[in-house]
Amino acid sequence: MRDEATFVDESLLKKVPRWRGYLEAKLGFRNHWYAVRLSGDVGEGQIEKVTLAGENILLKRINGKVYAIRDRCIHRGIPFSQKPECYTPDTITCWYHGFTYRWFDGVLSDILAAPDSRVIGNRKVQTYPVEEAKGVLFVYLGDEGVTPQPLREDVPPYFLDDDMAVEGHAYLVQSNWRLAAENGFDALHVYIHRTSPLLGNTQRGLPIGHIASSAHITVYEEAGEPKGVYDDFEQHSVVYDATVDGNVVVKGTRSSRPPGPESRSSGASTWLPCSARVDNFPDAGHYQFEWYTPVTEDSHYYLILIGKRVNSEAEALAHRQEFWNRWKPLSLEGFNNQDIEARVGLQTFYKDDRAWLTEGLIEADLPIMKWRELCHEHNRGIQTPDHIR
Amino acid sequence: MRDEATFVDESLLKKVPRWRGYLEAKLGFRNHWYAVRLSGDVGEGQIEKVTLAGENILLKRINGKVYAIRDRCIHRGIPFSQKPECYTPDTITCWYHGFTYRWFDGVLSDILAAPDSRVIGNRKVQTYPVEEAKGVLFVYLGDEGVTPQPLREDVPPYFLDDDMAVEGHAYLVQSNWRLAAENGFDALHVYIHRTSPLLGNTQRGLPIGHIASSAHITVYEEAGEPKGVYDDFEQHSVVYDATVDGNVVVKGTRSSRPPGPESRSSGASTWLPCSARVDNFPDAGHYQFEWYTPVTEDSHYYLILIGKRVNSEAEALAHRQEFWNRWKPLSLEGFNNQDIEARVGLQTFYKDDRAWLTEGLIEADLPIMKWRELCHEHNRGIQTPDHIR
Amino acid sequence: MRDEATFVDESLLKKVPRWRGYLEAKLGFRNHWYAVRLSGDVGEGQIEKVTLAGENILLKRINGKVYAIRDRCIHRGIPFSQKPECYTPDTITCWYHGFTYRWFDGVLSDILAAPDSRVIGNRKVQTYPVEEAKGVLFVYLGDEGVTPQPLREDVPPYFLDDDMAVEGHAYLVQSNWRLAAENGFDALHVYIHRTSPLLGNTQRGLPIGHIASSAHITVYEEAGEPKGVYDDFEQHSVVYDATVDGNVVVKGTRSSRPPGPESRSSGASTWLPCSARVDNFPDAGHYQFEWYTPVTEDSHYYLILIGKRVNSEAEALAHRQEFWNRWKPLSLEGFNNQDIEARVGLQTFYKDDRAWLTEGLIEADLPIMKWRELCHEHNRGIQTPDHIR
Repeated sequence: MRDEATFVDESLLKKVPRWRGYLEAKLGFRNHWYAVRLSGDVGEGQIEKVTLAGENILLKRINGKVYAIRDRCIHRGIPFSQKPECYTPDTITCWYHGFTYRWFDGVLSDILAAPDSRVIGNRKVQTYPVEEAKGVLFVYLGDEGVTPQPLREDVPPYFLDDDMAVEGHAYLVQSNWRLAAENGFDALHVYIHRTSPLLGNTQRGLPIGHIASSAHITVYEEAGEPKGVYDDFEQHSVVYDATVDGNVVVKGTRSSRPPGPESRSSGASTWLPCSARVDNFPDAGHYQFEWYTPVTEDSHYYLILIGKRVNSEAEALAHRQEFWNRWKPLSLEGFNNQDIEARVGLQTFYKDDRAWLTEGLIEADLPIMKWRELCHEHNRGIQTPDHIR
Repeated sequence: MRDEATFVDESLLKKVPRWRGYLEAKLGFRNHWYAVRLSGDVGEGQIEKVTLAGENILLKRINGKVYAIRDRCIHRGIPFSQKPECYTPDTITCWYHGFTYRWFDGVLSDILAAPDSRVIGNRKVQTYPVEEAKGVLFVYLGDEGVTPQPLREDVPPYFLDDDMAVEGHAYLVQSNWRLAAENGFDALHVYIHRTSPLLGNTQRGLPIGHIASSAHITVYEEAGEPKGVYDDFEQHSVVYDATVDGNVVVKGTRSSRPPGPESRSSGASTWLPCSARVDNFPDAGHYQFEWYTPVTEDSHYYLILIGKRVNSEAEALAHRQEFWNRWKPLSLEGFNNQDIEARVGLQTFYKDDRAWLTEGLIEADLPIMKWRELCHEHNRGIQTPDHIR
Repeated sequence: MRDEATFVDESLLKKVPRWRGYLEAKLGFRNHWYAVRLSGDVGEGQIEKVTLAGENILLKRINGKVYAIRDRCIHRGIPFSQKPECYTPDTITCWYHGFTYRWFDGVLSDILAAPDSRVIGNRKVQTYPVEEAKGVLFVYLGDEGVTPQPLREDVPPYFLDDDMAVEGHAYLVQSNWRLAAENGFDALHVYIHRTSPLLGNTQRGLPIGHIASSAHITVYEEAGEPKGVYDDFEQHSVVYDATVDGNVVVKGTRSSRPPGPESRSSGASTWLPCSARVDNFPDAGHYQFEWYTPVTEDSHYYLILIGKRVNSEAEALAHRQEFWNRWKPLSLEGFNNQDIEARVGLQTFYKDDRAWLTEGLIEADLPIMKWRELCHEHNRGIQTPDHIR
């Protein structure tokens, strides 16, 4: 039995007033939209089980539209997913006593074993707003009575642009979602990518490290717009020759292309509640969009989408083919898999809340601190174990 | 390290004054008799290890009578069962230092490695009263100094009747014992049994649901008698046609026998500390007796016994043969296995004590509330983690 | 999340004022030397991961000398051992951002991805003093600023003697280290060894029990010397015929050698922080040295060394051959494996701190009480979970 008081210890939270809400958000933030599945994961009439920030949720696509309900009967807590029963396209029935709910609004429409009960029509199972965009299913994890903000406020800029074609794939990763967000936005972590096959394949450059200057970190916090932090790589000081005791021991990769802004990624940004955009990656003219959706305290749904602006169906098809034939094996599984390894490596230390106060960040970690402060300032609520019960 | 205060939170207990003792009884009640094994499980001279309400206990049959002691040496806590040593029929010796105890009274009669110790004859390991009836071994889980009540006060009426022949089998089920008791006594749960092969085999009826009327629930609480709740199925309103949105989606099974009271079970009752009786089940003229003996917080020993009144050895033998040839495969494993699935389904939700306050019982769950209140009122003590240490 | 207050409950500690520090020392003592590996386990240039009292430590041998550092980068807690990178013989580099530390002093000498950081040269990872003696690697688990005592204060007398040749082998055992120390020093526990093949092989005697007299237990607590308790077996009262109800049920083994002091072990002693010496064991003229080094709360590194005084290389070689050909299969794996079984048997009970107050020690356990009091009196600090974080 875990009680609220011990979720994150108050004595720790007090020590980080500027990012207290982030330290508390082990399970993510409430009243935000989260990418939870790709559209293709939920076919017509199909039921899919999802865990979002600790809440067990069922998705079903009915006449093309996806609906989401809590995977727990209001009567005695039975998970519908243990033995789903659907007697009509629009309802789900609990296999224990026949409590039947409408997918549209969650209302208890019938009880098969007790058709005269007064509770019929008067109770409901929790439902979740769902939006589908760019081939991604988004669920709104919201408090009762809160009207969802437009989806566009909770995704990186450019993602919803009409001419943006995106293709992607997702992985379940065994680390807290915050470690994923920080790893992706950490300019120093390119060190781990020096061996990626992506470098030889694209002939692009990748330094051993590049270090942000605080003057070129931009915080986006305008009302009604996405909230994020942008780090402009082109203003960084860049390290190609890594030394130990004054001797070069590892070298970065210099682009073998003609010089120009597109010879390496030009910037990275992170956005509330848990997404990122990397510009000119995995190659010039591309955008990598990522989501680090909290699943449990110790795992996240890592969605990687590669976007490209297209002007025709033919260009969209070419992008799709390039994603599956080139970027998925080469970059997702030859570059981002190195990020997964790093996040899992961080988890052992950071799973103890106290670690967040004993870590040893350095100057180059400034963008991470900006991100933590942004989250603290602009999140719309903290998910806690009480929401899961 | 778990301390007493967190066993069940006081703030939760306060909210259910009418069944507080039941919410607290995760591990069952003290000063009651519990069915722990079938007689045949402990042959002459054989040692059997049992866990009852978290306490590890050893049974041994000596000259026909079964004795029970705590499976833990008083010296340094070693479990005898790791390497049982019995140098005489009446004693058990700890394999570590040779502490030797009498099965009859638990007295430390010898220490093989220290024969002159002053503690010999002056200390004892805990013993438990044992009774054997109807082929079942009962252990009394009692406080020191408490004289056991007669066994008959702790079993369902009829069970000990001279003409009652019983045959049975037991299963270890991964749910708290209270979920088992409630599932068995829940009239609505017949919904899960609509697919059981028992129905076709016996040609008896089984509705989709049947709903208790409070006027026909009888609470038995006379001093010196078994304490229980009886629900008379014949007074129920019965549902055969289950509808969703007004259309019949599932039908119950109507008896294809001539009409009469025996075409389906006539009633169910639950009894302190953790047993049940279903009348005219699995067929007319039979009684199903069940025990849901707490093993750990998360598991129980599910003993199913089918009883029939007999007038001769030949009738008893016929009943035995019918049990093994027909009822065990058809009903225990074709009907009660569905109950096991339901209990395991409940466990995920109810293992958090708070769930007992957020469940959504309905009118038809009235018999369950009566049972909870009966337990609160008439239990003779609560088992806590302190008793296990 | 576990906090300091619950490591060992204060209310329990208060009840054992004479050995409070021992009850607290689930993870062992600080500011002591611990045997952690055999020399041969760490070859030149090789890295070995060790867990000592909950702290993850890396050992490396550089130009013959072994160094030890904490296996955790100071930046973001990454374990170096997940993917060790060594660009020079004297440094280790964290695979995540290239933080590079010197094995000699732990100083952060370079950051590959951020060569201009102000923290370079100004921070260090924790290092541990290492000594190597008699083919054993010792690590000092010390508080910052504490100068290690000489190794000789933390090992049993005779162990470091010039003419003492030792050979050994180690096992990871799943019990708390204190249960190991007590089992080894427990005169009654010979009961478990009555079936060992060592007895027939050496024709030496082994009683069923032998009982210390308090007059012949010597406590060594002189300043600047090893702190230990010595129990002189030759002054014991000895039990060869074990009885139940007055009948002999088990007999000890009497030596079939000519009578004399060397027909069985002559004494056992335990020494801070966690070692033992048994004299004239496994045979006359031999010393068995043991270490029970805490790994986690629930496991220890059990190092068994057999020592013999030698006057030449040839005698040392003969001892080495006898160890591998005779003592390891016969005694370590035919006698001490019985001790391992006993420790694992104790663990179930004693893993709950409260068990230490409900155990039932008897007169013959006096040497164990002396050992607990010695540890309380003379330990140099208690290891707690705060040291591990």
